[in-house]
Amino acid sequence: MSKRPDDEFFMGKALQLARKGLGCVGANPLVGAVIVKGDEITGRGYQRAPEGIHAEVDAIRKNRGETLDSTLYVNLEPCCYSTTPCTTSLIQHRFKRIVIGAIDPDPRVNGRGLSLLKEHGIDVEVGVLTRECERLNEVYFKYIREGLPFVTVKFAQTLDGRIASKTRHSQWISSDASLRFVHKLRSINQAVMIGIGTVLQDDPRLTVRLTRGKNPCRIVVDSSLRIPLSSKVITQEENSISVMKRRKCCEEGVILATTPRADKEKITALEEMGAQVLVIKENSEGQVDLKELLYELGRRGISSVMVEGGAKIITSLLRLNLLDKLVVVVAPKILGKGIEAVGDLGIRDVNQALRFSEVKMRRLGIDFIFEGRFAAS
Amino acid sequence: MSKRPDDEFFMGKALQLARKGLGCVGANPLVGAVIVKGDEITGRGYQRAPEGIHAEVDAIRKNRGETLDSTLYVNLEPCCYSTTPCTTSLIQHRFKRIVIGAIDPDPRVNGRGLSLLKEHGIDVEVGVLTRECERLNEVYFKYIREGLPFVTVKFAQTLDGRIASKTRHSQWISSDASLRFVHKLRSINQAVMIGIGTVLQDDPRLTVRLTRGKNPCRIVVDSSLRIPLSSKVITQEENSISVMKRRKCCEEGVILATTPRADKEKITALEEMGAQVLVIKENSEGQVDLKELLYELGRRGISSVMVEGGAKIITSLLRLNLLDKLVVVVAPKILGKGIEAVGDLGIRDVNQALRFSEVKMRRLGIDFIFEGRFAAS
Repeated sequence: MSKRPDDEFFMGKALQLARKGLGCVGANPLVGAVIVKGDEITGRGYQRAPEGIHAEVDAIRKNRGETLDSTLYVNLEPCCYSTTPCTTSLIQHRFKRIVIGAIDPDPRVNGRGLSLLKEHGIDVEVGVLTRECERLNEVYFKYIREGLPFVTVKFAQTLDGRIASKTRHSQWISSDASLRFVHKLRSINQAVMIGIGTVLQDDPRLTVRLTRGKNPCRIVVDSSLRIPLSSKVITQEENSISVMKRRKCCEEGVILATTPRADKEKITALEEMGAQVLVIKENSEGQVDLKELLYELGRRGISSVMVEGGAKIITSLLRLNLLDKLVVVVAPKILGKGIEAVGDLGIRDVNQALRFSEVKMRRLGIDFIFEGRFAAS
Repeated sequence: MSKRPDDEFFMGKALQLARKGLGCVGANPLVGAVIVKGDEITGRGYQRAPEGIHAEVDAIRKNRGETLDSTLYVNLEPCCYSTTPCTTSLIQHRFKRIVIGAIDPDPRVNGRGLSLLKEHGIDVEVGVLTRECERLNEVYFKYIREGLPFVTVKFAQTLDGRIASKTRHSQWISSDASLRFVHKLRSINQAVMIGIGTVLQDDPRLTVRLTRGKNPCRIVVDSSLRIPLSSKVITQEENSISVMKRRKCCEEGVILATTPRADKEKITALEEMGAQVLVIKENSEGQVDLKELLYELGRRGISSVMVEGGAKIITSLLRLNLLDKLVVVVAPKILGKGIEAVGDLGIRDVNQALRFSEVKMRRLGIDFIFEGRFAAS
């Protein structure tokens, strides 16, 4: 019942495996598992699809030799619900020791998996690389605890903070490497969201084309349902089918979030084109209530959303404190007067500026990538 | 007459010594020299003050033993004018070999120092770490070639590009570590320049207080001479006297740059308070002609100017293509609608944005520091 010198090493291996599921597990957690006998890893597994087998069972199936008296490392507490829980499998396979990175906040688990294993005489160790394990599943943890998707906002700006010129020209502020990075971000989020202004201005496709990965669900917030039926986000051909086949990830389609005042015929026309229309209650300004929309997306199984603009939706989400993470591509250029990503937050004193709890800045090609978690306010 | 394996090593030592003069040499170049006999450095010297002895002579004076048959490494071509040129001293001391980093663009030297040494049978090598040597003296090189000071613009902004809130509140966007860094920048520039708007808004002192170093000359661009006689930039007590004594650097005082329409009585009042008033010709908008001002500063022996804002002067200098370097302190905060550093540059297409030839971004405390050389346009 104590930590061993190489626990962190093997948990690191489990985390590496877990990361392989990034962009493929839907609203499920990223889980990896390794089985160790003596000093040797004899089995490896990870969750690869929303309905795929769990990492622990995957590792057991791939294990060389007997699991009897082995140790299993897993970054998240094994599940103990459903008809074939992982805990049952682990008990049956007579593991001697199980090392867990983080407790699963799912109310159906949340320490019960752990207790069950202990009750069956297994030596259970919790709290190895916990911080890394929690960070890896920050999306899942938020989603399970709050029922709200983890919301990342991403924009590309010049060094002087402009996302477009004064004539609203913005293609392309960032470099090719940064565009590929953005497509990667799309592929690891379940949904991408933009405001109708961005559709009308830029007519983006929001698909994953410059990198491998599945297309996210594409959401347009369009309070008056002004979207042209010819918009690329609705009409485009999907072009990552080969990748989808490879990863067995499903295509999520298009969602238009609107208000009760949306034109009914337009709703029908859009639905006939394959889009889903969500009628969400209005806020006091007659716009889609964004918090309500996020809860609705959560209920539909969407645990991660990346907001790609424009300034209006970004500003609204910031004012409502609904954002978790910010990613800014900073192009080392000066544009002068233009459009900024963030509008009026009502802040008068610079000491009231929004802050981040974790930040990093790295070079990507000629650009810089800022990533930060918003600090709790 | 060929490079040797350890030439770069010793030139690196000369560069290190040269850097010690940063902030102390006025409009002179930064020069360091090492004398090497066998494998050993026997003498070191550098330029420490505007009127100080040159690095080569400093190294000779401090050399242990004979200079006969030694090699001297110096980052800039030795001078060959004045009554006691370095070349004469080097010839007299019978150096065997002289390794030079970069040719001095001063028309009184510019290859003549080199030729003189060769004519006296000294083995002269040019072009060791040339790029580093030229970069170290980028200020001097520009000043000598163009007669214009090297102009750095510096501002502190939030991640979303705001230098102040919508109520013009700006103290302090950046952290203490960044403020110290800015004071350091002040101390290594001969002059600091701001527009009258910044005086009226923030009433800064522009002195060096948070770090060691001399106070720069403080320049206010004030086309209508609106500056209050009570402004700190004029009335403040200097408070880095102990540092000035230590480094033997002189205090440069305050310059007000105005136009012929400035009130004559106000000019007299300001001069009586110890400020210099420069009457510069107006541009077509009735403002101080900034290029003319920079030439005038150049004529007065100021080779480096750091512009600290506000947006109006920064934008004007960008439009006139008078800036050499940009330093931005980026605080990882989001402020929303506020004041931006750069106004209208007339750019409509993002591909016309101003670019940089060399950029770097580094962490400083919680902030990030961007530094870039403007690319030739």
